[in-house]
This record gives sequence, C-alpha cells and structure tokens, in this order.
Amino acid sequence: MQIQALAAQQQGATLQPYEFAVEPPQAHDCVIKVLACGICHSDLHMIDNDWETSNYPLVPGHEVIGEVVEIGSQVNHIKTGDRVGVGWQRSSCLQCRDCLRGNENLCDENQGLIVTGPGGFADYLMVDSRFAFPIPAGIETKLAGPLLCAGITVYAALRSAGMTSGQEIGVIGVGGLGHLAVQFASRLGNSVTVFTTSDDKAEFAHQLGARHTVVVPGGTPPAPTQKLNILLSTVPASVDWAAYLEHLDSDGTLVLVGVPSEPLNVPIGAMLNKRRRIMASPIGGRAMMLEMLSVAEKYGIQPLVEVFPFEQANEAMQKVRDNKVRYRAVLAK
Amino acid sequence: MQIQALAAQQQGATLQPYEFAVEPPQAHDCVIKVLACGICHSDLHMIDNDWETSNYPLVPGHEVIGEVVEIGSQVNHIKTGDRVGVGWQRSSCLQCRDCLRGNENLCDENQGLIVTGPGGFADYLMVDSRFAFPIPAGIETKLAGPLLCAGITVYAALRSAGMTSGQEIGVIGVGGLGHLAVQFASRLGNSVTVFTTSDDKAEFAHQLGARHTVVVPGGTPPAPTQKLNILLSTVPASVDWAAYLEHLDSDGTLVLVGVPSEPLNVPIGAMLNKRRRIMASPIGGRAMMLEMLSVAEKYGIQPLVEVFPFEQANEAMQKVRDNKVRYRAVLAK
Repeated sequence: MQIQALAAQQQGATLQPYEFAVEPPQAHDCVIKVLACGICHSDLHMIDNDWETSNYPLVPGHEVIGEVVEIGSQVNHIKTGDRVGVGWQRSSCLQCRDCLRGNENLCDENQGLIVTGPGGFADYLMVDSRFAFPIPAGIETKLAGPLLCAGITVYAALRSAGMTSGQEIGVIGVGGLGHLAVQFASRLGNSVTVFTTSDDKAEFAHQLGARHTVVVPGGTPPAPTQKLNILLSTVPASVDWAAYLEHLDSDGTLVLVGVPSEPLNVPIGAMLNKRRRIMASPIGGRAMMLEMLSVAEKYGIQPLVEVFPFEQANEAMQKVRDNKVRYRAVLAK
Repeated sequence: MQIQALAAQQQGATLQPYEFAVEPPQAHDCVIKVLACGICHSDLHMIDNDWETSNYPLVPGHEVIGEVVEIGSQVNHIKTGDRVGVGWQRSSCLQCRDCLRGNENLCDENQGLIVTGPGGFADYLMVDSRFAFPIPAGIETKLAGPLLCAGITVYAALRSAGMTSGQEIGVIGVGGLGHLAVQFASRLGNSVTVFTTSDDKAEFAHQLGARHTVVVPGGTPPAPTQKLNILLSTVPASVDWAAYLEHLDSDGTLVLVGVPSEPLNVPIGAMLNKRRRIMASPIGGRAMMLEMLSVAEKYGIQPLVEVFPFEQANEAMQKVRDNKVRYRAVLAK
C-alpha cells in the first residue's frame, strides 16, 4: 500500500509531504489508520539528528493512536476495528532475558519506532502488533498518545524506583512528563512534592494533585521540605544533585528520566549518609504499558494537550521546540 | 575506674600510653575487658584528622572484642562473663524513624566510637551496651573484631543492594573489606567475580570462593565478563565507573562502601540503557549486625588476620598505613 506521510528530508528540515510504499503485513504486523499522534521533544531530537541515529527521510511521531485496519496471520490479541496505540518502541528480540522478564525496553535489540522506520505523522502506520497496545475505552483518542511515551516513561520509572502508596514522592519539573507523574503518584495514594521554576506551574501542579510545591529559582538549591522516598527528575538538565539528594529519606531513590547530556556528578557522601540510591529508567516494557493504561483509565489520569490538525504539524513542532506548549501537543484528525 | 590506653596526643602522632578515668556505668552501659581489637584504615584517618572530626587525645580501635565485666542497671541482653564486640558505632538516638526501622547506622545522631570517645586500644572499654553485640561461640576472639567493621560494612551493603542467592556478584578490590565480601557472597550461594590489580590477590580470591577473577591493570577498564546483579566497590578510589557499569545486568546495582574523596562522575546513558542503579552504604544497623555474626559463624566466614600484641600497636598501625597487611591487622592479648 501507499502511505501519505510528513517527513523531514534532511537534518533539521521542516516537514514536507512524503509518500512511500509498504509491503503487505507480515505474520505479526498490523496496519493502523492513524487518528492522532502526540509530539515529543524526542521527535525534534530525531529530526535534528542529535543522537546521531537518524535516517532521512524521517517521519516523526511515536505517540500514535489509531484504528486497526489490517492484521497479519499470527495476530490474535487485537483485531480490525480496535483502537490501539504505539509508543517509542517498535520491536525487540522477544527472546533475551530482558524480554522474557517483561523488560522489552531494556533489550539490546530494541528499536525505536522513528529510529528504524517511519512514525505516526502519516495516514497509516504498519508495525509489529506486539508493540501495539489496546487503548482502554475510557481514554479519549486525543489524550491517549502522550500516555504511550511521556506516560509510560514516568510511570515505569516510579514503579521501578519502588513507588507503592502512602509515600512521599518528589517530581522535578512540570512539563510533558512531570504533569503526568504528579497525577500518577498522587492518584495512587502518594503525597507529591513538586519542584518547578515558575509560580504558575506550581499552581497547576497543585490542581493536578501535588500536596507541596517548591518554586526553585534557576540554579539555586531548593528550599528544605519533607523527606522523600522517591524523587523523579523529568528535566533534561543537570540540577544541584547534592542539594536534591538531601531531600531524600533514608534508602530513598533519585530516578532520572530527563537525561542531561553531561555526566552525573554527585558527592558520594550525600548518598552514603542515608544509603541513598540513584537510577535512570527508559520508557517501560509491554506489561508495564498495559498496567499504566489501565491505571490511567481507572484513575482518570489525563495529559493536558493542545490539539492541532495534521496540516499544522510544522507550526505545532515549532511550538514544542519553543517550549510553549502546555503540556503536550497532539496532532489529531 | 582508671583506664590504661594508647592514644595519639595530636594529629598524626604515634600512639603513647594514656591513662584516664571513667565514671561508673550508667543504666545502659557495660564495661568490657578488651581481649582483641582490629585495626582499620579509619583509625588512621581519625588519627590524621582527615575527616576533621577528631578530638585528642585520640584512643583508636573500633573492632573491639572483650569480656563483659560490669553492666548498668538496665542491661539485660548481656551479662558479665559474656564475650561481646563493639564496632564503629557507639550510639544513636534510638527514637527516630531510622532507628525504629533498625537502621541505627543512618540515624542523624549516630556517634562513631572513636569520634566521640575512646576506642578499644585500651585495657577496658565502657560503652552503651545497646551497641555491644554477643559474639557467637564459633567465632574466635582474634577473628571477630574485623567482622564488626569490615564485615558488617560489606554484608549490609550486599543485603541493601538486594543480594539473595544464585546471583552474579562482583567485588572490586581484595583487601580488608573485599576478602570478606567474597566469602559472604559465595558462601551464601552466589557466583562471585573479583576485580583486583594483582595476580596473587586474584589467586587468593579464588581460594576464598570467587568463581571468576579479573586482573585489572591500574586505570584500564576491566575486560568483559558475565553480567552482574550487584557490583560492590570496596576501594576508596574512583575507578572507571562507566566501564564497570557496563558489567551490570539490567536492574543491577553498583554499591559503594569504599568512598573516594572526589564526586561520583558517571555517564547517565550507562545507567539508563539497562535501568542500572548506584548506591552507597555505611556500616549496618543492630539487627543486621546480629544477622551478619550469625551468618559468619554458620558459614565459617573468617577474616585473614595478622595478629600483633598491643605493645606493638605502632608497628601494626604503620603496616596498615603502608598497605602491607593481608588482610586485616588485629591487636590481641
């Protein structure tokens, strides 16, 4: 079949119409008619080849929601007419220990949707159905996309760091990731403290369920607050790690999903005195994805989105680039 | 009573005889007739005031084994005639959440034996009995001391990092701490890989139970080996953390007990791609100490010691300072 997409023809380029052919679906593939697609900073990084993994023409979009219109011979967990979503990951080996443990996101052979193929800025997407997830009925199409990348990233990180309930959870940054983390942590029965640089984001975090907010002027260590069991950093920049570590309770965990380009640099004493931990967590496995979607539906966790028609993809991308979207941009039909 | 001790009268000084008086024991105190006392690099750090917490005259010794000769009115878990040991910690508040969780070692008010009072280079030691631990009958007096500091440090670190059994455990450094870590990990049913700088230490590690050894020339990243669930660094120096992190399996933990003075500096990507963790762990709480001593007795875990008479304390200290003791020096009567 022919697919009509939007693609960057070269590094840093604006998106242009791009048509390409795909073969009929293989045994495990499915063809999805795209209904909506979220925009993530990673789409910009890929267009700009910031990670030196990009291939052009590059069709962005890895928060894809659509309707299944065709399935391969071996597909039995979804059927035509189902509404499904695809996130950052396109495939993994499904046989290594990571995959067998349900950590397909850690597989050495994991492939990013827009790293090794076209993404969701298109009328149709053909992918391995094993990385297409049914969207629960209670989640709106235009709100589902950001859950598949931003949502799973923060949910899996919080769970991997040991989030249960009744805990003190800190979130650094109220953006596309942070505003979902606040909701997941608070709706699941935790007391959430948000660290943000602006008063209005602090106010918004309160509305989302944060119990405490700390407005941190740029570069200054945050003011003291209650001791945290888990502190999730969603900002792609180095902060004053030593000061933040002191906010962690004994055996507390700092978990990074926003990854600065420079190395982590922390005084070991700030870890040693309270047996603190630091970890980093990338997206999440398939079982975690299903769990996250179920939790999102049951507890009404919703991204705040700005919706654009697909025809305005370039305008939407620019607004994401300028950090002017609150809090997640979505292209929808 | 009068106590005859050995003390450094000032920073960096050799030890000289030093006599001082102590009041009769308070309700929770006990008086211990010292039979043996291990020597730890921390004794040297304290004599040298490296941590700027030293008070002089400074009586070193925090791996103290002796016989209880007097107890306060509220002491009921030990009695006169019992053989007990005292490690790095002298006291804690016993009321904070850390203490109530059994993590007295993390208490904000925890006090080091030789930081706030005299240590075990003496004929008698008076301490809070709640930090004196009965020594199981199967552990020799001259071998017990190093368990109370080096032993608890590595045992608690491995347990806090999640050591169970059937795991792949790495140990960086075969010294006073490392040679005990190899024994704890291997005797409790784990496969141990040792990273050391010398062939003879590698051979010794094999004898102690290590399954694999990697001889690492100074500064060079270690050669590839099997993926580790836990990697314990016992060396008080920065190593090539990025290279070592790549030896960790998914969800693996690097745990530091040897603490370099410079900050930890690691590329976050090496943590992110396999959801790895880094933590640091200081000594251990009281329940952990009892567990460690019980495990040491049941599984025959013994430090290799060089025994010196108390009169040769200065010679022994110098040998520790020169890193010529394999693997732990003990003063014994």
